[in-house]
Amino acid sequence: MSKVQPRTLSGFMELLPPQQMQMERMMEVLRGIYGRYGFTPLDTPLIEASEVLLAKGGGETEKQIYRFQKGDADLSLRFDLTVPLAKYVALHYGELSFPFRRYQIGKVYRGERAQRGRFREFYQADIDVIGDGKLDISSEAEIPSIIYHAFTALGLKRFRICVNNRKVLSGFYASLGLTGQSAGIMRTVDKLDKIGSEKVADILTGELGIAPELAAEILRFTAINGRNEEVLASLEEYRGRNPLLDQGLDELNTVVKYLSAFGVPESHFAVDLAIARGLDYYTGTVYETTMLDHPEIGSICSGGRYDNLAEYYTDKQLPGVGISIGLTRLFFVLAEQGYLNEAMPTAPADVLVLPMTGDLSPAISAATALRQRGIRVQVHAEQKKFKQKLSFADKLKIPFVLLLGEDEISQGKVSLKDMHTGRQELLTLDNAALQIAQAAGAAGNTPIRDKGE
Amino acid sequence: MSKVQPRTLSGFMELLPPQQMQMERMMEVLRGIYGRYGFTPLDTPLIEASEVLLAKGGGETEKQIYRFQKGDADLSLRFDLTVPLAKYVALHYGELSFPFRRYQIGKVYRGERAQRGRFREFYQADIDVIGDGKLDISSEAEIPSIIYHAFTALGLKRFRICVNNRKVLSGFYASLGLTGQSAGIMRTVDKLDKIGSEKVADILTGELGIAPELAAEILRFTAINGRNEEVLASLEEYRGRNPLLDQGLDELNTVVKYLSAFGVPESHFAVDLAIARGLDYYTGTVYETTMLDHPEIGSICSGGRYDNLAEYYTDKQLPGVGISIGLTRLFFVLAEQGYLNEAMPTAPADVLVLPMTGDLSPAISAATALRQRGIRVQVHAEQKKFKQKLSFADKLKIPFVLLLGEDEISQGKVSLKDMHTGRQELLTLDNAALQIAQAAGAAGNTPIRDKGE
Repeated sequence: MSKVQPRTLSGFMELLPPQQMQMERMMEVLRGIYGRYGFTPLDTPLIEASEVLLAKGGGETEKQIYRFQKGDADLSLRFDLTVPLAKYVALHYGELSFPFRRYQIGKVYRGERAQRGRFREFYQADIDVIGDGKLDISSEAEIPSIIYHAFTALGLKRFRICVNNRKVLSGFYASLGLTGQSAGIMRTVDKLDKIGSEKVADILTGELGIAPELAAEILRFTAINGRNEEVLASLEEYRGRNPLLDQGLDELNTVVKYLSAFGVPESHFAVDLAIARGLDYYTGTVYETTMLDHPEIGSICSGGRYDNLAEYYTDKQLPGVGISIGLTRLFFVLAEQGYLNEAMPTAPADVLVLPMTGDLSPAISAATALRQRGIRVQVHAEQKKFKQKLSFADKLKIPFVLLLGEDEISQGKVSLKDMHTGRQELLTLDNAALQIAQAAGAAGNTPIRDKGE
Repeated sequence: MSKVQPRTLSGFMELLPPQQMQMERMMEVLRGIYGRYGFTPLDTPLIEASEVLLAKGGGETEKQIYRFQKGDADLSLRFDLTVPLAKYVALHYGELSFPFRRYQIGKVYRGERAQRGRFREFYQADIDVIGDGKLDISSEAEIPSIIYHAFTALGLKRFRICVNNRKVLSGFYASLGLTGQSAGIMRTVDKLDKIGSEKVADILTGELGIAPELAAEILRFTAINGRNEEVLASLEEYRGRNPLLDQGLDELNTVVKYLSAFGVPESHFAVDLAIARGLDYYTGTVYETTMLDHPEIGSICSGGRYDNLAEYYTDKQLPGVGISIGLTRLFFVLAEQGYLNEAMPTAPADVLVLPMTGDLSPAISAATALRQRGIRVQVHAEQKKFKQKLSFADKLKIPFVLLLGEDEISQGKVSLKDMHTGRQELLTLDNAALQIAQAAGAAGNTPIRDKGE
């Protein structure tokens, strides 16, 4: 029979079992943390009617979309989890309670140009809080605090969440008489870390036609830095120039105050006036998250406050705040940079049971008893040499092998071999179970191994 | 602004939060049980090259496939998890250890005719054990035992796994001189429960041109029933007529013996000679699972032994055994039949914290402390009436409300209101945490509520 060459499409991540275990553990940690903050899981279709998914229309994204016909239907694969959330909330508005807090971890699709580290199918892990008409400012502090706790639970240590407020920026630009140009200025200032202040000044004075002294003021404002209290103190000097600016300053102060009540240490967040986010969509607090030892990677988790989640579907005013982790890219970057924790157990089982008798029943019964205690067990019943079975355990990093031959059976015991030390002991099944369970419990289980603080 | 009507495509399941919680819990239970049997999680792309996905070609499935162009690429959405597994094992053969045990819970796509209870996007939850060249018979008993433990952990009680062996059937047909017609006879016999024995006899003697006395023999054989040991004893009378039949009988006896060592009670599995499975693909033990109180639903979990997983991709002989739960359909059926456990907590939080002061810091700090103990907490900080906030907790079924006003703060305590009893107590935060955690731990958490045995 002629064969088809098996292959996986480029831009689609497909992991080997140990790495997949790490990825699963990351998702499990995120589900746990998101749940602890009172977010409910959501799952929406990967396919939506194009008319619904592209209601907003236009933009760079539309070119990248996987769009196709099936029968009469014009369909598209989702390219993020925000548009499906907007649809969901508009559609089920009457059945939801607000503020509505949901998380969603799911795949999205963008037909980007294929290149290393860019994915066409990737997981996003999103959280959003949606208010009905209004939403209290405290959510704007809670969202980054969840990210702090999530990354910490994953094992990441050296990262910082940068916080800014678009009202501060818009209000400040307005105070310079540049009200109409707010969006353009923000998009330009957002490029500071990529293109530097000189090129930003060139664009501000050239393309945007802003007077050089105002461009200089903008850059001076953006460059304010120091400890959070110092930045906030410096900003007080701008108070009174514009009502929106003042409101933004109040919000920023409140967010900083609540961040510490939410348990985020000062070392892990910074007021950064250079963070603007390119999207017009954001209206208040905005976030970016950087790895301190790898600023070149850019933000690994971004988001912000918006005033109108679902304006394309409903007249209801639905303000919200959300943040998104690009999980597939983050995983790729962590693997590249050597951050995956090799000490995290990735074996498919805690023990490999090796039957040494023709009738497998005693070995199977032992495996059943171990599994009833919550231990993960494989039974290796193939006709192979003993040495090959040990090397199977070794290759999969299964920490224990349990042998059951006539001798053991007649004594009502089992032989337990510790694959690390090579030591083999004759034990009761209960004692073997205890030893296996203890070792499984003691193993570290953060998927990320970071340098200490 | 003109609005787009938000909608979800028909044939695509999109659940409200409480039901989604039930579905998530089902997946969590399955991941736990599959893991306990030493299966490693796998995740493959939803999109594959059409050439790869449709290597087998032809068949009913091909018409249902979501297939489209993107640039030059001819792409398809996966329609099951078996073909992607075959591709994966063929592609990564050198990097895997065999027997390779994997589970995958993921969405698959079939453009079926839209009708109630039929889904175009649905989850499958598959387990497979793949051998390299050979695979021991014990896996054929282990696979249904995992399904027994999985359904039991989900809360299902009144179900039965029906087991047969295609070698028994093929060998028996061969003993009647009907070797070449084995596949056709099996496909026909497989319809017994749907169309009845008379119509099956008509097809056998008509379409398949089998002599009436042989058709009668086939039906007599298929109708053998009784307790498992009785069926096996009746089958012994057929031993010696054909080597394949004898081999099948040996396998069936071994599977039945090991099933009980794997902890499956006799009440939950049955040798059923009417089970054939339509697919030619299966070569040994085959399975179907029925709900005792709803036989009309058909099999909720099916699978079997096959000899050649990846013959379209590789010359390697890769025998395996697998089983699949159609999770979305199962969930739909369980909901329809009233099997979803209403006592399972579906609230997004274990406690709702209500700040009663202008400065939210004390309430936020209390929430942070509770979360550090693993308690799921929402803070409700919106400007709403007290009564509205209580009814919010009520609607979401959040079992406790924690109040924090000036009085509580000055005494270093919190007020905890039990939403079931309505009782409110002034407690230390530690004691409140204890009470909330105890209640959360005591709540039943099986997603299915079945009648007792």
